[in-house]
Amino acid sequence: MRKINKILVANRGEIALRVMRTAKEMGIRTVAVYSEADRNALHVRFADEAVCVGGPKSSESYLRGDVIIQVCRDLGVDAIHPGYGFLSENAGFAKAVQEAGLIFIGPSPEAIELMGSKLAAKAAVAKYNIPMVPGTEEAITDVEEAKQIARQVGFPILIKASAGGGGKGMRVVESAEVFEEQMQLAVSEATSAFGDGSVFIEKYIGSPRHIEIQVLGDTHGNIVHLFERECSIQRRHQKVIEEAPSAILTPALREEMGRNAVNVAKACNYVGAGTVEFLLDEHQNFYFLEMNTRLQVEHPVTEQITGLDLVKEQILIAEGNPLGFKQEDLKINGHSLELRVYAEDPANNFLPDIGKLETYRRPQGLGVRVDDGFEQGMEIPIYYDPMIAKLVTFGKDRQEAIAKMLRAISEYQITGIETTLPFGAYVLQHEAFVSGNFDTKFIDRYFSPEVLERKPDEGADEVAAALAAMLMNKKKPAAADAAAPTAEKNNSNWRRNRTR
Amino acid sequence: MRKINKILVANRGEIALRVMRTAKEMGIRTVAVYSEADRNALHVRFADEAVCVGGPKSSESYLRGDVIIQVCRDLGVDAIHPGYGFLSENAGFAKAVQEAGLIFIGPSPEAIELMGSKLAAKAAVAKYNIPMVPGTEEAITDVEEAKQIARQVGFPILIKASAGGGGKGMRVVESAEVFEEQMQLAVSEATSAFGDGSVFIEKYIGSPRHIEIQVLGDTHGNIVHLFERECSIQRRHQKVIEEAPSAILTPALREEMGRNAVNVAKACNYVGAGTVEFLLDEHQNFYFLEMNTRLQVEHPVTEQITGLDLVKEQILIAEGNPLGFKQEDLKINGHSLELRVYAEDPANNFLPDIGKLETYRRPQGLGVRVDDGFEQGMEIPIYYDPMIAKLVTFGKDRQEAIAKMLRAISEYQITGIETTLPFGAYVLQHEAFVSGNFDTKFIDRYFSPEVLERKPDEGADEVAAALAAMLMNKKKPAAADAAAPTAEKNNSNWRRNRTR
Repeated sequence: MRKINKILVANRGEIALRVMRTAKEMGIRTVAVYSEADRNALHVRFADEAVCVGGPKSSESYLRGDVIIQVCRDLGVDAIHPGYGFLSENAGFAKAVQEAGLIFIGPSPEAIELMGSKLAAKAAVAKYNIPMVPGTEEAITDVEEAKQIARQVGFPILIKASAGGGGKGMRVVESAEVFEEQMQLAVSEATSAFGDGSVFIEKYIGSPRHIEIQVLGDTHGNIVHLFERECSIQRRHQKVIEEAPSAILTPALREEMGRNAVNVAKACNYVGAGTVEFLLDEHQNFYFLEMNTRLQVEHPVTEQITGLDLVKEQILIAEGNPLGFKQEDLKINGHSLELRVYAEDPANNFLPDIGKLETYRRPQGLGVRVDDGFEQGMEIPIYYDPMIAKLVTFGKDRQEAIAKMLRAISEYQITGIETTLPFGAYVLQHEAFVSGNFDTKFIDRYFSPEVLERKPDEGADEVAAALAAMLMNKKKPAAADAAAPTAEKNNSNWRRNRTR
Repeated sequence: MRKINKILVANRGEIALRVMRTAKEMGIRTVAVYSEADRNALHVRFADEAVCVGGPKSSESYLRGDVIIQVCRDLGVDAIHPGYGFLSENAGFAKAVQEAGLIFIGPSPEAIELMGSKLAAKAAVAKYNIPMVPGTEEAITDVEEAKQIARQVGFPILIKASAGGGGKGMRVVESAEVFEEQMQLAVSEATSAFGDGSVFIEKYIGSPRHIEIQVLGDTHGNIVHLFERECSIQRRHQKVIEEAPSAILTPALREEMGRNAVNVAKACNYVGAGTVEFLLDEHQNFYFLEMNTRLQVEHPVTEQITGLDLVKEQILIAEGNPLGFKQEDLKINGHSLELRVYAEDPANNFLPDIGKLETYRRPQGLGVRVDDGFEQGMEIPIYYDPMIAKLVTFGKDRQEAIAKMLRAISEYQITGIETTLPFGAYVLQHEAFVSGNFDTKFIDRYFSPEVLERKPDEGADEVAAALAAMLMNKKKPAAADAAAPTAEKNNSNWRRNRTR
């Protein structure tokens, strides 16, 4: 047990504020580090002390582990919270922190390293029989051997160039009849593209959902899971909308996935908050993908349904406290959604749209939480992830959480840049999302810039009203009556969150 | 069953926004009314339509029931939500609304009228044996009769001039020996002050706590209670800090008070959201005070611990839907606190301190909700209640809710006017509050302007840290180390919420 009195948050933006808020509630002093681009950032003002650690590029500042550790020495810091991104999954940094006599608020360097390697992670969890996507263990080139494996795995299968990446050198093969032909094409393609013709064979998951399980482990060997988050709505393989619980998990499947996640954490003696990611196919089979050895961006949805403050739990664990609850004490209450509000133009392939927040007014009220790191008039720096805010809603059930999210989106006022808010409104009103019948290919299947073409002032209200009506199983409200002489039709810009 | 498609909110400020947010989530269109003083108010911008109904004084605008009903006719409104205050407990208005063919979102005019009269209310609930403060049923002048009643009731007793008010003509009598003398003094005092010498005799509750029970009744005769709110921290007999659940109710007492509250509601065939107020003495005896036949200012703390949206419940009930849950389905989850942020100077006897919100930045994050009706640069109008905001926090237990409230207070930035924020910080750190050992006399006992004298920049942080340490049963953190050359001591005004 080692009491933490002062924490340095080695991060910026919303997650730095998020961590400092909880630290303050625990009576712990906070130190911010910042780059030259973040001199006026909110996390700098929020901290008790703040130190500039270098130039605007991450490599000059937020990734300078040596400088950050020196700041800790200078200011009498006890512990470092790495947030997510930057140094959070850098085993070397975690080790250097420990060697400097400081507490790293996260797992051991060994656990970070082990789970950082897909092959090592798979080997480590093997003794717990964690389900994996079936396929070859190693890269192969022999067509006959490959065909045999493909038959064992069962079609459709995926051929992946071992040197490939980003979808290059990948082929879906539907049946044994065309396997040889496709394999030969894949090998020659891989050879000419990467100079390496070896490939992996694995089962092709046609309709994958991304389901991840939050785990917490203490230094006394206790590990629990905090249920799942569904993160299937993604653009460019990055999550945009997350929720807890998933719309489709049965209690039995939840328990089974939770048990497997706890076993993955056991396999690496996990300490702290971590996330075990799975793919779920259309038959409710799940497969281990990887473990993220840090706090996730989307952790708030888990906080809302469990009533736990995950940063507080991280800090208590880092101090050496045992978990204050057992698996059977944990219950799901209600439903929570998160929309990541990025400075991106969804109508232009989600390209970053950096600029100044000319107008910035957050939504409020029952069931709405905004975690952000900006205020009106600030610039979104070009150097970092363009996330402005995480808009989180919660209600007694999924319908209520969706209705609150649509209301909050309509209330959010951002001008000066394009954001993912209108994209969020589109997804949340889409029948596939509302029904829960969606997977990671949602955007490919259902989204194109044209769906956002309608001016928000023309459609947003009606669409929201229609959805709410649908959710509540009621008829769409009648159009507004003509205004009486004394009435003013409201044409304020309350709802104009797409106006540049 | 009658579907509501359009609601007029006959109110202003935070409660108007509160109601409209839920209406929007339910796909219901909203109409705001406003006075000439509120032309730029947020509730006007938030509504789908808005109508100016008169001059700045309430009597010229928000109390003009006739004008408001005409607006409903003109705009095709289905239902009126009265909020709290203004017309919310005006039986005549509720009746006029019904007679205009509109839905009044609240109880029947008869229930409002019945509970609006203390004597009638007491008579109505008598058959349910609701505990009342023992004493005379009617005003008396006869000393011997009075003495006999005082003996039955048991000393100490309170003599109250029947024409009195605001503490005038009240005397506490400790024993039978001095009764006659005190009674004669009271009668002669009352005669000279009010021209009426008659008095009431009732049991004197030395250490009263204000505990109220939230009830919900539907049009099908179902009534449930949603547990208690403790509202003992008051200034000028008005609530400032509320919480749910109370720090001191046992489950058995909660159930008993809840059952009595449901019976009070039954006695007036109550429909909608209402509140039954009780006094609780130091021996955990409780006494019925009155029933408030509207949504209370402090309803959010109940929402936070039950997961229910009370405005949504009100609307569903008004449409004729049966309650979607039974008493046994309701559970308390966590703990919630509310601090009313008034434009008042706590160092100057809580006198209103009207002016402009030069700086206005709300706190955010997990467990914090701000319901307000203002933004930076706005003026607090002199015509209405000077409440700026309701700062609501919630955590998994009372300690966490307190820690979050202290953090949220330190994060709230208001300049240009004095507010009750520093008073709130004082109360929440006071041992009597933290231990739960307090009553409605908290301010008389423990508060004087001097306790706020310390400049917040000198003390706020340390006090907050000390409290957090106390709450967590840990030692107070050491003072900050001397800053290293690269470090900047943070002297931003993040925490200066008292600076004029």
